Parts: sequence; structure tokens; C-alpha cells
Amino acid sequence: MKRKLWGSLTSWELSCIIDKNPVLVLPVGSFEQHGAHLPVDTDTHIGNELALQAVEKATYPCLLLPPLWMGIAEHHMYFSGTITISYNTLYNLLKDITRSYVRHGGSKLLLLNSHGGNVAPLKTAVNEIHAELDLEIVLVTYWDLVSHKVMQLRKSPLGGISHACELETSLKLYLRPEDVRKELTEPHVVPGNHYLSPEMFSSNKITVPMSFEELSSKGHIGDPTKACSEFGKAVFEEAVKELSRIINLFGEGKLW
Amino acid sequence: MKRKLWGSLTSWELSCIIDKNPVLVLPVGSFEQHGAHLPVDTDTHIGNELALQAVEKATYPCLLLPPLWMGIAEHHMYFSGTITISYNTLYNLLKDITRSYVRHGGSKLLLLNSHGGNVAPLKTAVNEIHAELDLEIVLVTYWDLVSHKVMQLRKSPLGGISHACELETSLKLYLRPEDVRKELTEPHVVPGNHYLSPEMFSSNKITVPMSFEELSSKGHIGDPTKACSEFGKAVFEEAVKELSRIINLFGEGKLW
Amino acid sequence: MKRKLWGSLTSWELSCIIDKNPVLVLPVGSFEQHGAHLPVDTDTHIGNELALQAVEKATYPCLLLPPLWMGIAEHHMYFSGTITISYNTLYNLLKDITRSYVRHGGSKLLLLNSHGGNVAPLKTAVNEIHAELDLEIVLVTYWDLVSHKVMQLRKSPLGGISHACELETSLKLYLRPEDVRKELTEPHVVPGNHYLSPEMFSSNKITVPMSFEELSSKGHIGDPTKACSEFGKAVFEEAVKELSRIINLFGEGKLW
Amino acid sequence: MKRKLWGSLTSWELSCIIDKNPVLVLPVGSFEQHGAHLPVDTDTHIGNELALQAVEKATYPCLLLPPLWMGIAEHHMYFSGTITISYNTLYNLLKDITRSYVRHGGSKLLLLNSHGGNVAPLKTAVNEIHAELDLEIVLVTYWDLVSHKVMQLRKSPLGGISHACELETSLKLYLRPEDVRKELTEPHVVPGNHYLSPEMFSSNKITVPMSFEELSSKGHIGDPTKACSEFGKAVFEEAVKELSRIINLFGEGKLW
Amino acid sequence: MKRKLWGSLTSWELSCIIDKNPVLVLPVGSFEQHGAHLPVDTDTHIGNELALQAVEKATYPCLLLPPLWMGIAEHHMYFSGTITISYNTLYNLLKDITRSYVRHGGSKLLLLNSHGGNVAPLKTAVNEIHAELDLEIVLVTYWDLVSHKVMQLRKSPLGGISHACELETSLKLYLRPEDVRKELTEPHVVPGNHYLSPEMFSSNKITVPMSFEELSSKGHIGDPTKACSEFGKAVFEEAVKELSRIINLFGEGKLW
Amino acid sequence: MKRKLWGSLTSWELSCIIDKNPVLVLPVGSFEQHGAHLPVDTDTHIGNELALQAVEKATYPCLLLPPLWMGIAEHHMYFSGTITISYNTLYNLLKDITRSYVRHGGSKLLLLNSHGGNVAPLKTAVNEIHAELDLEIVLVTYWDLVSHKVMQLRKSPLGGISHACELETSLKLYLRPEDVRKELTEPHVVPGNHYLSPEMFSSNKITVPMSFEELSSKGHIGDPTKACSEFGKAVFEEAVKELSRIINLFGEGKLW
Repeated sequence: MKRKLWGSLTSWELSCIIDKNPVLVLPVGSFEQHGAHLPVDTDTHIGNELALQAVEKATYPCLLLPPLWMGIAEHHMYFSGTITISYNTLYNLLKDITRSYVRHGGSKLLLLNSHGGNVAPLKTAVNEIHAELDLEIVLVTYWDLVSHKVMQLRKSPLGGISHACELETSLKLYLRPEDVRKELTEPHVVPGNHYLSPEMFSSNKITVPMSFEELSSKGHIGDPTKACSEFGKAVFEEAVKELSRIINLFGEGKLW
Repeated sequence: MKRKLWGSLTSWELSCIIDKNPVLVLPVGSFEQHGAHLPVDTDTHIGNELALQAVEKATYPCLLLPPLWMGIAEHHMYFSGTITISYNTLYNLLKDITRSYVRHGGSKLLLLNSHGGNVAPLKTAVNEIHAELDLEIVLVTYWDLVSHKVMQLRKSPLGGISHACELETSLKLYLRPEDVRKELTEPHVVPGNHYLSPEMFSSNKITVPMSFEELSSKGHIGDPTKACSEFGKAVFEEAVKELSRIINLFGEGKLW
Repeated sequence: MKRKLWGSLTSWELSCIIDKNPVLVLPVGSFEQHGAHLPVDTDTHIGNELALQAVEKATYPCLLLPPLWMGIAEHHMYFSGTITISYNTLYNLLKDITRSYVRHGGSKLLLLNSHGGNVAPLKTAVNEIHAELDLEIVLVTYWDLVSHKVMQLRKSPLGGISHACELETSLKLYLRPEDVRKELTEPHVVPGNHYLSPEMFSSNKITVPMSFEELSSKGHIGDPTKACSEFGKAVFEEAVKELSRIINLFGEGKLW
Repeated sequence: MKRKLWGSLTSWELSCIIDKNPVLVLPVGSFEQHGAHLPVDTDTHIGNELALQAVEKATYPCLLLPPLWMGIAEHHMYFSGTITISYNTLYNLLKDITRSYVRHGGSKLLLLNSHGGNVAPLKTAVNEIHAELDLEIVLVTYWDLVSHKVMQLRKSPLGGISHACELETSLKLYLRPEDVRKELTEPHVVPGNHYLSPEMFSSNKITVPMSFEELSSKGHIGDPTKACSEFGKAVFEEAVKELSRIINLFGEGKLW
Repeated sequence: MKRKLWGSLTSWELSCIIDKNPVLVLPVGSFEQHGAHLPVDTDTHIGNELALQAVEKATYPCLLLPPLWMGIAEHHMYFSGTITISYNTLYNLLKDITRSYVRHGGSKLLLLNSHGGNVAPLKTAVNEIHAELDLEIVLVTYWDLVSHKVMQLRKSPLGGISHACELETSLKLYLRPEDVRKELTEPHVVPGNHYLSPEMFSSNKITVPMSFEELSSKGHIGDPTKACSEFGKAVFEEAVKELSRIINLFGEGKLW
Repeated sequence: MKRKLWGSLTSWELSCIIDKNPVLVLPVGSFEQHGAHLPVDTDTHIGNELALQAVEKATYPCLLLPPLWMGIAEHHMYFSGTITISYNTLYNLLKDITRSYVRHGGSKLLLLNSHGGNVAPLKTAVNEIHAELDLEIVLVTYWDLVSHKVMQLRKSPLGGISHACELETSLKLYLRPEDVRKELTEPHVVPGNHYLSPEMFSSNKITVPMSFEELSSKGHIGDPTKACSEFGKAVFEEAVKELSRIINLFGEGKLW
């Protein structure tokens, strides 16, 4: 596995792998409040674990960078412990890292996102970076890969999966159960309407910038009391399978 | 109607309306290639017409600015006539306009988007602007308001609505038929796969920055030969109804 | 006429015209207070009408973009309804639009300015853009084309033409008389001195940044009560004649 | 005199003078080619000498900073020795210096410009800085103060005064004759037309960004062979008189 | 120990610790070539290990963020695997993180640097951030803490410690020996002169920007063949002792 | 000597010298408080005098620009008369000047710094500029050239030389004695500790951003009462000797 971790390789070793036209995976997470029961590194932790296992499983040559542990989380800043960076900081950080990779000969980059606040900014950024640097980019937000599995297995109805919710809590219970302050979980479902809903797997007709404290005094939305390790395991393994498949297809030029 | 057009009012008249806490509507469009059969102002034209009629229909006090006729369209630049601006240009333009409005006392802004390339950048921008300026913002992309109606009435199967397609051509046939070079319409359906599809009403599992010429040598994707004025009329009227309703709900504080 | 409007043409049609090395005309206006009697779109409206007629009259191939309806108007911000953008926003907007044009093969750009606050910023910007992009640029502020005619025909002495004044009110009376709240016109002449005068056709020895409310409680300077449609017509037609002549000379390489 | 030079004073001495609400004078020049016969510091030298004498003559408390010796001179870059900075560099430099002054309590700034390429950028910059910082600013370009005197005394007809011309060469002959390579002076008059002329005291109807080598193979425009020390002296003394008067009026709040 | 890792804590737990006015430690490293024998994460790894142990040992309340694993390494870009970011990217990243901390009430930040190319940029950045945000900052580059110990124990003469050298190789042999490709170590001493030397513990009279390949074809400078785990241990433990002492003194307000 | 001053030469003369591949010297100073007894231009004055004499003495072809008289001095802003610019302003100013030089064919630049607050920013800037523009750069801070001489001849123990101290006051007594308000000199030694000391010739283990008023109510640190012209002369002449030697070695490609 170490042979796929960028940081653990020497310059010469990396040069040999980059010659094989690998897929470089860069996880982008966040440090932001996750209610009373989950630590602030939840998004970064989930994304990184997923990247590690998918990279290990992938058969096409690939490399993994450490996660960007900070993301765009202004809407969580009311709650202590949240770190947020601006769009331009994120964009320039991504562009500088990508440009370094391209200068060494790299041409395939996969960004693995694990934070809701990063979705639109990363789409914006990859389009700009693609226009400026000569490489192929694929952007994945992990829950888009597992919607079918989630809808199949979730215990909570719509509204139960949003933030520090049934899904994220289940993933943590599977990946590192000691991180979950189980005694502090409680349901906090915010009902949506025709236009707008915080549920992760509903689509919204409009976008309304909002701060999280307007929706939740504790910081979480959804029903973490429905979380269980089994659900976390099923979803995580599905995500690993899908992501490693995407790496292989991307590498082989068969993704689109 | 003129009493709702920002530009046709005097400073004092605007001051009186802004005192009523109106909803300010700003259409954001694009000038970009629309295949062989539609003019490059298609997105801007559709968005502006929609805004005009919705503002007229709305009962809550509102004001309308002229559209930003340029948007983010780098992926169309292979084709002549496309104008593109960078994210930062768009963001700063929106921020400066919004800040002017806020300095005059305004507190409700509705951005009406009519261009695919603007979706993620506008989401990114409104979140940043909301954090910097003290006002409420609602962002709407018009086709999100009419997905149900479109799926009900479209003639083409999935794949037929993407760009300069059955939907956009129908809207133009309804709004300004002389703009459609009908003899030049032809189908160009790009099949999607499990992860990715250009169809406007499919959701994608991944994002891949691509230039349009990779997908279409003429510039359009979908089936404009299925377009008809009646479909355009039905969709447009539904969009007007929904948008004016959103203006009213937003104004009355009942949108969420 | 439509064949000269960028927005109403298809990509392929634009490509054919750009092959003829046309002059692209881009009006730059402003939305800013114009006293009690004129709407805030006065500058943008005048500039756009002038561009439309000059482009129509010109014999050299040319294309017209919609106006940038917002300009630099910080000095009017005391009065409601004024929209202002920063220099860098204006510069980047112009640069992005110009770069798009150059990428499609364009090489001649004419900016038509109709707002006092844009004069120095546009001069600054065209010099920077000319150094960065490979094209010829001509910048025109419309009243510089008609100074002789204005001085011949004006009824007010020096001091009467400055802002929402005899000139602008006359142009509006000619172009769209229903826009003029005639009953609200009143003279407000601000006398200049040896160094400084707000009169549009006096030259100043010094520049002093000032906010308009320091000079006028209603927002206008000059004498709109002297305005008449005939004066507006004479000046407007002179401007159209001069501007179309400049387009032709510019196109034919005979302007300098 | 030293008591008016910012740099030669101690912090405490400056504090005492700033308490008197002085006028701070900052010359802005350029290092740019001046043909075969004048050194590249011509603009900076003239502006600085003028500032020194005007400050000495002024009776209202004032302070003088050393000149910004670099300006915006892209249009001279074809010729060796020209230094040019971008608008944003100039703007930020001016803003940082001005902000430092304002933080120490200063509220009156006079920029003395002596370079054609700086005129529009400085107008643009002072309007932006005035909107951001709480102080009064006056911008003077020295030749605007002496147009009457120049037109009275010049030997060359229109066309003779533009760049490294009768005027600048005369000023140098008066201020530092050893700087003039007299044997290398020759006339190079560029005739203008109805719209455009390089003559310093003609007004132009249009602006066309141009590089100097398009107009002059040696770099100068005008007729330096007509230059003489007496003309330089008369113009310089007039400029000193006017500038010191402006300082006094500005200080006393009587300039406008 | 987990109680000191920012990421493993919940929002509420962090809020409680920040109430105690803790020292926040942020390691700043680099991913850059380290010759043939060390992996590219060497700097980040050393800095992070040091931070972990110092934070554990410190008695004053403190918190640790994950390292910024990327730094300023343009001078290593000739060698594959190096990632470099610009000064502004680093500055904005630090400012955004710091501002988030300050908004939650934090007031003491310790940056722990472990990369030579970051030294001047971090000094520049902390001075700017200190002027903009209301907090105390201490910047430490680890080898400045152990110069005495290094000079006492090193086996190589001056010249032996520079990059991927006796010191860094020894630290890696102590911290994670499997990372060292021992068979690939070889001496590469670059002799300095009166003005300039690459030796880490010599002071230079001048600064000359240089790319590493000008000095070393393999990428390392110094003598890694002299490295041993004991030297690494001694230096590392000294650094932990000093750094934990600095955290305590900083926290107690006794550092200066 | 004049033949080495950029500003006093014509474009053609500069072109001839630049053809010889000269060393261009650009002094970077500061206008900042120097206690009660020294003027605010102290740094700029010392650096400029040093540059003038070194350039005169150097035998390799060289050119001298006027000093940048403003630097980074935020930490002195509590005291009146200090001018400070941001890092980005300084960086862009240097880059624009350097780029102009490179466009004329220049390839060797020596920055002579004379201000403590500029040290890290200039190191940061020259590394960035070196990566962007194709030229060699040497950065010198003058006191680094004379440490040996200073330690030999100083009268004050460690602590006596920091800011407006024995060294700077002695240099001023030698270069322009009338600038020293001798009656206002008094000692103000700030003792350092194991980690940190304001003494110019001590090395610090840590960096702590601090405002000068925290350390000195009058603005100076050190012992200016120990200053004498002889010490100033000895140090200055040593600096001239070293700097001219560096110019020659740099020019001849023998500096490293």
C-alpha cells in the first residue's frame, strides 16, 4: 500500500510511477462542527479512509496525497471548532498542487470530496483549473456514489440524513466507533418544503445561503439515533467498490 | 410594469420602493454558442423574458435589473461567438451590484440563472456574498422549477434535452420563433452512462470538466427536431407561475 | 439591423462576420441617480441608442454587443438607485469580454462610453488591455464627439451642462420623452472657479474626488429647464454621424 | 526648507506638523525614454523640482515626500531604459502610503503628476482611494497649470509640444542644462487629425492606445530644437506660483 | 493525547478548551524531493511527530491541528514529486485558518515550521497576519531550537547538514527507519564561501535564489552517510523538550 | 559617476550599458520612526549612500536606480511619520521594475536592503521573482556584510545595537551629522532571553510579531549615546568595500 502513498515515496520512485500515467487521488474534506456527538474531523476522516481503501483496491496505477483537511464551512462558523477557508484560498491551493503535478508529467487527477460545503466550489474550481492546466480531472463527492445503497438500507425516512446524521454517524460507527459520543445523539429532523430541504438525498429547486444555527441549535440535522455500524459498513464498502472502479475506468480512458 | 424596472425609475422613486423591502430580481444569463439553429443570446433572452413576466405577475413589491448577459462558458469557447468571463469577474460583479443594493437599504435578492455553466459558480458566489453582506439571497435556475412539467410533456426520451435541445428550442419557438433557424435543426443525442450524462434532467454521479466540441461537432446536444412552440409555452408559463410564487413567498418570509 | 447584433446571431453566422475583420462596438454606461426628473438608466439608454443607430448607419462590417449597464459611480452612491462597481471589476469584465473576442479572431474593438465616472477608468483599462491582448481599441465618450454642436446650440451658459442637465435631459426628451419627469426639472448651476468646474465642456486644471451630494441636494447639476427635444435631436444625430464615421475609418485603417 | 521634507524630520516633529492639518505633497513621475537628448528621469526630475519650490513658497503648513520615480509607461517600453508598473501596483502603492498618512492623522493629500501616462490612472486611483479612506485629495498634472503661459510663449506651433519636446527640453535647459544632449535634438512633429493628436495642449475626441515606436523611431514627439532656457524658466515659475497657491487654498479650504 | 487533537474533538469540547486560552499548534511542512534516500514527506513527518510529542508533554492547555503538508518549494521543482504553492496561497491559507480560530475566541497560535523554503515566507506571513487579526503568534523552525545540540553531536563537519543530510536522515532513522533507503545514501557536500553556504547552521551574508539542481544532481546536500539513529534521537528529544517549554512559556505569558 | 545612474542616462545610453550585461543595483529602504533623535529617512539614506559609493567603486559595469524609499514597517506604525506598505505592494513593485529591466535585456539584479522589516519579505519576494523572470538576483542587507567589523569596534555590549541605536546613529553621524538630534539620545536597552532578543547581531530561536511600542516608548532600542562618527565611518567603509566586491564578483560570475 505504501507504494501508492505519494508522501512515503522518494522523488525517483514517484518519477517512475508518474511515467505510467497514474490517477492521482486528492481527498478534500473539512474540519467543521458535527453536532454534539461527532468530532470535527468527521468529513476529512471518512474521505481519507475511503480514498485509502479505494486506492489499495484499484488495479490501475494510482497515487494518493494526504487530504486537504480544511474546506468551505462558513455556514458552520457559529459553532466552535469549525475552520473555514474562502473559495479563492481553496482554488489557489488546488491549482498550485495540480500545477506541480502537471509539471512532473501527471495528467489524471481525481478529487474526492466528502463535505457538502465543498460541492459547488469544487465544481467551479475544477472547471477553471481544467481550462488553465493541461490535464483530465474527475470530481467525486462520495455520497453521490452510494445513493442507491443508502436509499435501500436507511432506517430514517427522508429528513434523517443531512449533517452528523444517520449516514455520517453510521460511517463513523463502522470506521472508528470510539469517535461517536453515542449518549449525545438525538434526532433533529428539519422538514423541507416544495422548494428546499436539507435532506442529503432530496434535490432542491432553489438555493438559499443559510447559517446552520438557523436550522439546528446543536449543529446536527437528521436522525443519528438511527445510525448503526452495519449500515455504515454497507455504504462504505459500496463507496470503496465504486471509487476503485472509477479510478480504473478513469485510468483506462473508459470513464466517458 | 415600468414601475418595477429599476432602470426606468428615478432615484427618489427607487428609494420609495426600497423602503417597502422589495425582492430585487437579477437575471444572469450567457452569450454562448447554441448550435447551428439558435442565436448566442438564447440563455439571456429566456431568463430575461421569464424575469419580466414573473415580476409583472408577482404581487409582492419587486424590482428588476437588466440581465448580466455574460456568464461562465469556457467549455463553449471552441465555437465562435461565445463570450466567457472568469469566476472572479462574475463574483466581483455580483458582489459590487449587491453591495450597492444593500447600501441603499435592500435586503432581498433573487438571482435568476438561465445557463448551465453558471450553476456551480453562482452557488459558490451567493454563499460567499451572503457571508459578507447583510441580506437574504435566493438563487434559482429556471429549469429546476419545471422539471415535473418537462418530464410530463417532452417528446424526446432522456438525452434529448441538454443544450440547444428540445427544451431551449421550444422556448425560443414560443418566445421569438424568428430566432430559430428551423432548417438547421438536427438531433444529436449523446448517450450517458452510469456515472455521467449530458441530459439536463439526469443527475450525475461525477463531474468531469469537458469542452463541448468533444461531445458535439455542431455545438448542440439533444434533439431540437422534437421542439414545438406548445411545449415551450407550457414550460414557460409553469416557470413564470413558479417564479412569481417564489418572489411572493420570499418577500413574505414564507419561502423556508 | 439584426445582422449586426451579436446576440441575435448564431455561432456560425458570427464566425463568418468575424472573418471580415469587423469593428465590435461595446457600449459602457451606468445606472446612477439623475436627479428628480430622469431615470437611473439615462446614461446606458443614451449610449445604447447611439450605438444602435451608428452601427446601423456604418458601412464597414460591424457588430454590437449589449451595453454594460453598470459603471463606476461611487460619487453618486449617496442617492438611492445608484449601482457602482470597482475599477478592477470593470477592468476584468472588459478584459474577459475582449479576450473572448480575440480568441474568436476579432481585432478591432470600439468602446462607447456614456458616463462621466467611466472616462478615466476606461482610459486606464484600454491601455492595460491593449498591452495584454493583441487587438486595436478605440475609446469614445459620446459628448467629446459633439462639443462643437453643443456649444453652438445650447441655451444655457457654461454651468448648465453637467449631470441630468440641459444636454442629458434634451437627449431623453428626443429619445424617450415619457422618461422625463418634466414637472420636477429645476435649474441647479454650480459655479466653477479658475481650477475646477462641473460644467461638462470646461476643462479643469485639477481633479478633486467629490461626492455629488456635496454639490447638489437633488442630485443634478446644470439647467434641465433649458432642455428641449430639438437640441437633443441635433446633438444625437451629430453623434450618430460622427460615431458611424469613426467606425468606418477605424475599420478601414484610416482613423490615425 | 528641511522642516518641510518628511524624510528629514523625526517622528515627533512630524507628529507636531501633522497636528496642524498640513497639505502633504507627493510627486508622481516616471522613468521612461525621452528620445535621444533627454535622460529617462526627466518627468520625475521636473515634478520633484516643482514640488520642492512650491512647498518652499507655500505659506500654509505642508510636507513633501520623495517622488514615486516610477509610473505607467508601457507605451514607451519599446525603448530601453523605460520602467513601467501596472495600474494595480501604482494604486496599491498610493493607497498604502495614503493610509499610513491617514492613520497618523493626515487629511489633505496633493498628488503632483508630471507624466502623461499617469493622468488617467491617477484620476482612477484618487477616486477609489477617496472612497476608501477618509481624506481630501487634490490631483494636479503640472502642465494643466501653465497652459495659458505655454500658449503665449511657445515658439513651435501645435504639434511641437508632446514628449521630449519644446516644453520638456526647455524645462530641463532651465533646471539642469547639462542633462540635455543638445546636439541630438531634432524636430519630429506628428500631425494630428480631427479626432486625435499627440500635441499636449490639443484635446482629443477619442482615445487610442498606441506604442510610441508607432509614432516616432527615436522616441520623442514635437520640436525640441525650439527649446530654450527662458521658456523653461517662465513656465516653471508660473507652475511654482500656481502650485503654491493651490497648496495654500487647499489648506485653507478655499480651493472649491 | 486525543484530548489535544483538534480534529478528534467535538465542537462543544473545543469550545470548552478554547475558553481556557490554549496555545494552538499548527505544523507547516512540505512535500519535496529529499534525494534518493528519503521520502518526499520528510519535512512534514518530522514536524508533525515533533508537534505531537511536544503537545503531549506540554502542561499548559494546548491544541494541535494536522500539518499543512505542502509548502514553498519552487527551488526543488526540478525533481519529481515536489509540490509547491505560492506565497499568497500559503498566506491566505494561514490567514483563513487563523481567522477561524480567532472567531472562536482563540488568541495564541504557534506555527511549527520544518522546511527551509518556508522560513522567510512564514516570517513575512505572521507579521502580516498579526497586523490584521487580534492574536499572539509565535513562529518556530525546529532546527533553530537544537543548534547547540546539533553542533555538539554531529559527525560531519560544516557542510554535512543541509538537505536530506546527516540531520534529516538521522531524524528519520530514529522516527521511522524503514523510510530511509540506506543503500542509496552518499555524501554530497557543497562547499560554501565567504558570502554563502548551504550548510544549515552557517549564516549567510547574502541571499541568492537558486534551484537545487544547480547544486546537486541527486537532490540532497550534505552527508547522509554520517547519519545515525542516536543522533536523531538526541536532537529530536531536545526539540521536544524545547518546544513543549515554549508552549508552556507562551501560554503563561512568560516567553518575552 | 553620473554614467552609472540609470535616471541620468538617455534611453540609447542605457541600451549600450545593458548590452554589457551590467549589475543593476536597487536600494530598498524605509521611511519609519527612528526614535527622538533620527529622521524617518534614516534607512533609505544609509542604503542609498552605500549604494552610491559602492557603485562608484565597482569596476564591473553597473547601474543604480533611486531607492524605493518605502518598505514594510507596520510594527512602527504606532509612531507618527512611519510609512508602511503591504507585502504584495512591495512584491508587485519589485516585480514590475524587474520585469521592465529584463524586457530591456538585463539579467543581473542586486537588491540592497537597509531595513529590518524588509528582510524576510525581500527573501520571499526574490525567490518568487526568480521563479517567474529569467534573471539572477542577489539580495544583500548591509549589516550582514559588516558583522565582523561591528563586533570588533562597537562600544555597547549586546543589546546596544537594534534600532536607532549605536550603529545607525554612528552611520548618520558620519554621513550627515546635522541629522542627529544628539541632545535627545538616550540608552534604551531591551534585554533578550534564551529565545528572543532585539539585538541586531544576536540570532533568535523564535519569531514573535510585535509592535515597537511594546518594547520602547520613544521608538528606539539600543544605546545611541555610544554612537560616534568614527565607528560609523569604519563600518560604512567596510560596507562599501564589501558591496563593491560583491558587485564585481556577481558581474564576473564568481560570487558562487
